[in-house]
Amino acid sequence: MVHSQYWTKTREFDGKPKLNDFEIIEEEIDETLNDGEIIGEAICISVDPFIRVYPIPPGVPVLGFQILRVTKSANSKYPVGCKVLANCGWRTTCKVTGDNVWYKLEGDISETVWLGALGMPGMTAHYGLLDICSPKPGETVIVNSCAGAVGNLVGQIAKIKGCRVIGCCGSDEKIEFSKSIGFDEVFNYKTCGSYTDILKKIAPNGIDCFFDNVGGQLSSDIISCMNVGGRIAVCGAITSYNSTEPVMASMVQMNMIAKQLSMKGFSIASYAHKFPDALKDMIQKKIKVREALTTGFENTPSSFINMLDGGIIGKAVVVV
Amino acid sequence: MVHSQYWTKTREFDGKPKLNDFEIIEEEIDETLNDGEIIGEAICISVDPFIRVYPIPPGVPVLGFQILRVTKSANSKYPVGCKVLANCGWRTTCKVTGDNVWYKLEGDISETVWLGALGMPGMTAHYGLLDICSPKPGETVIVNSCAGAVGNLVGQIAKIKGCRVIGCCGSDEKIEFSKSIGFDEVFNYKTCGSYTDILKKIAPNGIDCFFDNVGGQLSSDIISCMNVGGRIAVCGAITSYNSTEPVMASMVQMNMIAKQLSMKGFSIASYAHKFPDALKDMIQKKIKVREALTTGFENTPSSFINMLDGGIIGKAVVVV
Repeated sequence: MVHSQYWTKTREFDGKPKLNDFEIIEEEIDETLNDGEIIGEAICISVDPFIRVYPIPPGVPVLGFQILRVTKSANSKYPVGCKVLANCGWRTTCKVTGDNVWYKLEGDISETVWLGALGMPGMTAHYGLLDICSPKPGETVIVNSCAGAVGNLVGQIAKIKGCRVIGCCGSDEKIEFSKSIGFDEVFNYKTCGSYTDILKKIAPNGIDCFFDNVGGQLSSDIISCMNVGGRIAVCGAITSYNSTEPVMASMVQMNMIAKQLSMKGFSIASYAHKFPDALKDMIQKKIKVREALTTGFENTPSSFINMLDGGIIGKAVVVV
Repeated sequence: MVHSQYWTKTREFDGKPKLNDFEIIEEEIDETLNDGEIIGEAICISVDPFIRVYPIPPGVPVLGFQILRVTKSANSKYPVGCKVLANCGWRTTCKVTGDNVWYKLEGDISETVWLGALGMPGMTAHYGLLDICSPKPGETVIVNSCAGAVGNLVGQIAKIKGCRVIGCCGSDEKIEFSKSIGFDEVFNYKTCGSYTDILKKIAPNGIDCFFDNVGGQLSSDIISCMNVGGRIAVCGAITSYNSTEPVMASMVQMNMIAKQLSMKGFSIASYAHKFPDALKDMIQKKIKVREALTTGFENTPSSFINMLDGGIIGKAVVVV
């Protein structure tokens, strides 16, 4: 037996998650391995917005990606000593099958980067933007929550693609960061006044691609400023995550028709078979990395709550 | 010179169109034809919801399709005596180039049908459903405004495709009509109570395809009942047409992501190159036709207003 800890929810979230919505459970893991299984120790753990709305019942480990150092292996792809990116929740140690492993870490890149630009957020930004929005050089791309784990990568990839890139976020510090990584225009949705007024000013030729992390009225207004044939990748709906009531916004249908827009909601899991291509591409792209690191497994819930509150820039990672 | 009349708007619509928003203008048409031009007399004129929101300035003819009998021709494709479907507005007589003609009428089919099942509504139903929603046999398809010009065709095509078809409309008479042409389930959105409750009851396995003519809260609730991988064709947004304020509805983004849905707004004009295929297909399908005929060019605005008010079943056509 090997000792482990995991975080679970004490109850379903009601509005904003609170510290006492979480508790640590102690467990003993049987070290006997079936074929294909590995045991690993957490090096670092990812906290991501989707965890807020993913239906994880109280009692089971909170969902999340982590970098594991393999300590015992019955899987020849992942031998003892290697590091892997796995989807095994907020745990200090865990036993998983190879199916839960996304990939083995390679090269001289920090483990935390494998949870961000080279992990789920990186794959999400890459395929959401390139596959669903298909931006062409010279087109205008907009992304909200643009200083977040996914949004900042979307902006950087769009710039590499030769697009004019507009971001939207909620603080001056985030605007400064977004501009430092190449965004052409960034506005603060909390202080800008009318969304359509600012959009008409900074996107006078209209918007071709919209990578939506947020939803709500901001998204409806962005959609109203899109060009004919525009493409919308719906990745997140943060504005509704903590809401106990349906979030109302101007209906999108009239603009969907008038501009002949396409909107697609996606789950990055459906692109899993293509991850090796994106990984190679993202490593070559030399993406600038910004992380918000929290130290200590015991601080995982506070890191998650702070991230949901918009209190961080870049990728939130807990270093165990 | 040949004498003609056309309907124009006296001013921009404000809320529901009113009779005094329209006036008849007398005009004289020069009978000299450039190469490719034809002159024709209106046999019947189509009134359609899109006219409410299409940006037609006061003073010019109100937009609309009609069946013309060609009286003079400088276009060998459309000789004198033939009948054509053309996009030339609410006029008694007009001169148009061949580019404004969709196609020449063939066979022994009533002219009014060429404005409905074989005209713009038919093409819209055909491509919106088959190309954007791509329904598979056994899937569940839903269409709102299901007794309208486009909606009733969508339902019939979906039934021919082997789908389970649900309709939504606003009167018992429309429900009866919809069931008579093959809809499996139809509900009255004005009297049904909770949309999600009725949808869960009559679509217990969820909805795969949604042909949206309406928008608003009904659409948001339908979207919340869709299955993973569902497809939404956005054809109309009637609920917003007469509104002077933005129409609010629950934001769709969370369901777009959770169900990995695709939504596409479309204009049937983008399918023009494929119309001959759809036409052949629609004629073979032996679609049941329901029309709401109004006699007299002078009654075109009242037919339009009545159609927008939901006062008719099937295709609204003015017989000149």
